[in-house]
Amino acid sequence: MKVKTVAIIGIALFVGALSVNGPLLSAETGQDRVVRLAELEIDPAQLESYKVALQQEIETSIRVEPGVLQLDAVSVKDHPTQIRLFEMYANAAAYEMHLQSPHFKKYKRVTIGMVKSLKLLETEPILLGAK
Amino acid sequence: MKVKTVAIIGIALFVGALSVNGPLLSAETGQDRVVRLAELEIDPAQLESYKVALQQEIETSIRVEPGVLQLDAVSVKDHPTQIRLFEMYANAAAYEMHLQSPHFKKYKRVTIGMVKSLKLLETEPILLGAK
Repeated sequence: MKVKTVAIIGIALFVGALSVNGPLLSAETGQDRVVRLAELEIDPAQLESYKVALQQEIETSIRVEPGVLQLDAVSVKDHPTQIRLFEMYANAAAYEMHLQSPHFKKYKRVTIGMVKSLKLLETEPILLGAK
Repeated sequence: MKVKTVAIIGIALFVGALSVNGPLLSAETGQDRVVRLAELEIDPAQLESYKVALQQEIETSIRVEPGVLQLDAVSVKDHPTQIRLFEMYANAAAYEMHLQSPHFKKYKRVTIGMVKSLKLLETEPILLGAK
């Protein structure tokens, strides 16, 4: 029985890994995913400091939080102070855990005086397609 | 010598795979990446038809184009006709190839009368962090 249990857990983990890293996240397999978009305008005088804090926050989140699947930061071309974030979490619990993490709270504290405006967009995934 | 060559190619492919699928795409490894954002407003009467066309386009692109790394479609919460696309390509050539692909051209042709407004944003990646 123990062997059977281990085998079932093994299969479950394998299927879980497939759904996270598979070639295509269909609407079905990706339906728990939480995708959030953020649009920020950064104080030009503090842009480099902001980027350092943002990079630290992203690197730590990806490394230590299993449920943080993707955190992409880009600037709008020719508008380096206009930052867009694309964030993907495994599910709502992972998203809530991220908001409560010490590294996210530190990022918010450190950058509050650097961010001139912040627009957060909650979303409904239609299709999340990835290699 | 042949074995050695195969081994070297094998290692190169392995390292290449790591840089694409590794736990974190740093600013260094991800610097060729092209990220494009799109903001669309869809005619409410044609929303379901639009989604079908969009899903076909995403699924085909991910399946047949090696340089299309990610195509995510979401709607803004409580505003189902406001669609946001997050697109990631391996490099500029992959992006150009996608724009010229028959499935992308078909998507544009089929959906032109469904899209009330379209805003495309070219971007500069700051940090692309993914599991």
